[in-house]
Amino acid sequence: MSRLFEEKESALLLEIMRLRRDVRGNRFTPQAVSKQTIDKLLAAALHAPSVGYSQPWQFVVVRNNEIKQQVFNSFTIENEHAVTLFSDQKQQQYKQLKLEGIVEAPVNIAVFYQPSKEPVLGQTSMSEMGKFSVVCAIQNLWLMARSLNVGVGWVSIVDPEVVKAVLGAPSESELVGYLCVGYVSEFLEQPELKSKAWQRQKQQQDVVFYDGFTA
Amino acid sequence: MSRLFEEKESALLLEIMRLRRDVRGNRFTPQAVSKQTIDKLLAAALHAPSVGYSQPWQFVVVRNNEIKQQVFNSFTIENEHAVTLFSDQKQQQYKQLKLEGIVEAPVNIAVFYQPSKEPVLGQTSMSEMGKFSVVCAIQNLWLMARSLNVGVGWVSIVDPEVVKAVLGAPSESELVGYLCVGYVSEFLEQPELKSKAWQRQKQQQDVVFYDGFTA
Repeated sequence: MSRLFEEKESALLLEIMRLRRDVRGNRFTPQAVSKQTIDKLLAAALHAPSVGYSQPWQFVVVRNNEIKQQVFNSFTIENEHAVTLFSDQKQQQYKQLKLEGIVEAPVNIAVFYQPSKEPVLGQTSMSEMGKFSVVCAIQNLWLMARSLNVGVGWVSIVDPEVVKAVLGAPSESELVGYLCVGYVSEFLEQPELKSKAWQRQKQQQDVVFYDGFTA
Repeated sequence: MSRLFEEKESALLLEIMRLRRDVRGNRFTPQAVSKQTIDKLLAAALHAPSVGYSQPWQFVVVRNNEIKQQVFNSFTIENEHAVTLFSDQKQQQYKQLKLEGIVEAPVNIAVFYQPSKEPVLGQTSMSEMGKFSVVCAIQNLWLMARSLNVGVGWVSIVDPEVVKAVLGAPSESELVGYLCVGYVSEFLEQPELKSKAWQRQKQQQDVVFYDGFTA
């Protein structure tokens, strides 16, 4: 039987979770991230659960500035469209938000889902389970980064097909997340979209139910 | 600026990740899980990142045995179909695996994605981002459970529509994960599907690439 953890250890885990932030380009510093640190992030990702132990993930570590620039161009196009979807006051607020750090972050990590050619145990009724396993790996990576005092920002305002083309991804691979990784000038105490009142914090009673939604 | 963590703290996080297991019914004990412990699991989940701070999650804590039984019935139907998808030797091995602990676990938690009626910041180019946020919440919950020495098993061999009906879920909500939660007789050192050679462990060099897939 593997070891048991103590109360102070679970308290530390909660602290890491509580202080994890989504970091954008205005807070990344140019300080290099060592290969050893990148390997620690990847090791955490590889300890994630995966449906049927399929480990359906692929990670592309990007340091090349031309590649980053091409991904940033996709962000720019997608973001110009995105802003039009919000109306009035929200649109003004949206335009003032810095939403990515692709070029500023010394390292980017593109994370893909590689579908299996064979049936996967546990994925036969819910086909999205493979992608969900990849998301678990990203969340492990993100928490490990925070514990190493490294910032991560997840950029989703890109065209996945453009990112695939830029990185020469196999046709069957699907982009799940594009991460910006680097040291930071600060970790904010609160999520920026909370402190800037973009969205209010939901309370536990709004989202937790017992024995059914009507109970 | 929020606090920095030390090397031994990141080492502890890796240890929690490394020893987290998917727990099935043959290892859950009937020991009750307190409301306080459930609340700690939910608190960890609520600290997850979410696209555009949308917090698009809903958690249904299930203790009612009739509800569990109805979900288990869906597992049985889905699993009888699933086994037919594997051929020859794999099918024999599949039949011998215990794949869920719905009834044995004192607590189940069904986790749903609640789509927004308004556009969500960050979800305009990749529509699955909302569900991915819910998966991040599940991974937080799972790690917190391990640090509290509580086991979690993620059951994906169910019909999401049946689970929705059983729990009276709103029509727009989508099931992301169905979790079995309880104390355990043991946490295995290795994933069972690895030690039973269902699937080999992938090596880092098989899944990590630098500056593109062809580099």
